[in-house]
Amino acid sequence: MKMESIEQRLQALEDRAAIQQVVCGYGYAVDGLNAAAVGSFYMADGVYAVGDIGRMEGRETIEAITRDPGHRAYVAAGCAHISTSPYVVIDGDHAVATCHTMVNMHGENGFFIGRLSASRIELARQADGSWKISLRQNWMLDGNPAGSHLLGRLNEGPIQS
Amino acid sequence: MKMESIEQRLQALEDRAAIQQVVCGYGYAVDGLNAAAVGSFYMADGVYAVGDIGRMEGRETIEAITRDPGHRAYVAAGCAHISTSPYVVIDGDHAVATCHTMVNMHGENGFFIGRLSASRIELARQADGSWKISLRQNWMLDGNPAGSHLLGRLNEGPIQS
Amino acid sequence: MKMESIEQRLQALEDRAAIQQVVCGYGYAVDGLNAAAVGSFYMADGVYAVGDIGRMEGRETIEAITRDPGHRAYVAAGCAHISTSPYVVIDGDHAVATCHTMVNMHGENGFFIGRLSASRIELARQADGSWKISLRQNWMLDGNPAGSHLLGRLNEGPIQS
Repeated sequence: MKMESIEQRLQALEDRAAIQQVVCGYGYAVDGLNAAAVGSFYMADGVYAVGDIGRMEGRETIEAITRDPGHRAYVAAGCAHISTSPYVVIDGDHAVATCHTMVNMHGENGFFIGRLSASRIELARQADGSWKISLRQNWMLDGNPAGSHLLGRLNEGPIQS
Repeated sequence: MKMESIEQRLQALEDRAAIQQVVCGYGYAVDGLNAAAVGSFYMADGVYAVGDIGRMEGRETIEAITRDPGHRAYVAAGCAHISTSPYVVIDGDHAVATCHTMVNMHGENGFFIGRLSASRIELARQADGSWKISLRQNWMLDGNPAGSHLLGRLNEGPIQS
Repeated sequence: MKMESIEQRLQALEDRAAIQQVVCGYGYAVDGLNAAAVGSFYMADGVYAVGDIGRMEGRETIEAITRDPGHRAYVAAGCAHISTSPYVVIDGDHAVATCHTMVNMHGENGFFIGRLSASRIELARQADGSWKISLRQNWMLDGNPAGSHLLGRLNEGPIQS
């Protein structure tokens, strides 16, 4: 049943591994206040659309999360931006990863789940072969049906732009 | 030390990637009320055995979780069915994945961990090359020793049926 | 742009898969009180340095966690040692994996996050081709800046010893 060449099969596995790195790496970079690493996961015109907060447009805007006083207060108190194992659909030079994201935090009474969201992450292969995020759409799983709707699209392929 | 051919090594990596998709995909599908996707991860006669709740037999029964009023109430309030990175042992056309599964939920006082379980997921390669679940055994980590016992079997290979 | 051979590319993917197994497998083994499996993930002189608790040196010391009365009490009450998807940097026979680790526990009022940490895991390829942990550094994300600092080093390669 395999019609793909060795080269195609290796490339598909390498693509999947690279996309997994981007998806999980964002959280470590943002918790680590590493602006360059945060930015490296997004295209120059990438968008991070957080349903209940707003739309961050462009790598520089997204990198600036690491300088945001609110974000720095969470990091100073102790927090973990976690993404779960992504379900990945690749189509040529585009891909979409579906996962949950959550922010676990530290407070007076110990650790707690501060945010719990559904994420749908559109990625594109770059000229240098790397994968970067073009659009990450995030919805809190707090009763707004948008999050569930987004997760249900797990098998829907990426936007071809 | 490698005695395997390129083909065998590629196949083993592809198997692992496919199994990872099945394990994490179930949670996104069930949170997304996508019955067809939920069913696609199970064999027609697959079994989902939840220790403290009961044994769901057959793809149609498992898909019907998405129509269950209790499940739909959790989704409406906000929930995330999360599986952690699976530890995978493959033996020919059978495999077993060990992981934690949890259901994080939303309530009046914010987010909380509603269920936390140990899972052992038996999978089989299908005629079309895909991997599907034949048996998922799940035990709550609430003091019942069955969950710990199940996790300790992480290196025990799959059932050869 | 690819200058690597098929063999090198396959090996890199196999290395990544093996490292993922080690990183997630530790948690299942320790929750499952499987001392042999716990030990198998560490080098004979491997070190597990938990910032707020202390430094465990050598495989036998680390395996002995499974016999520790405090650990066994957590397991008896219900707990899950979870590691998130690792961000992996491989350099020849050494690698480093960055992830969050947490211990979700069960108590009188249900499940809760008992510990939430940043982990940086140094690994080395062994003579038999397997990957084992040489040093796992762990810091609680409880306001101590060490955890955030460690996560921010995600792109820093492994120690070459």
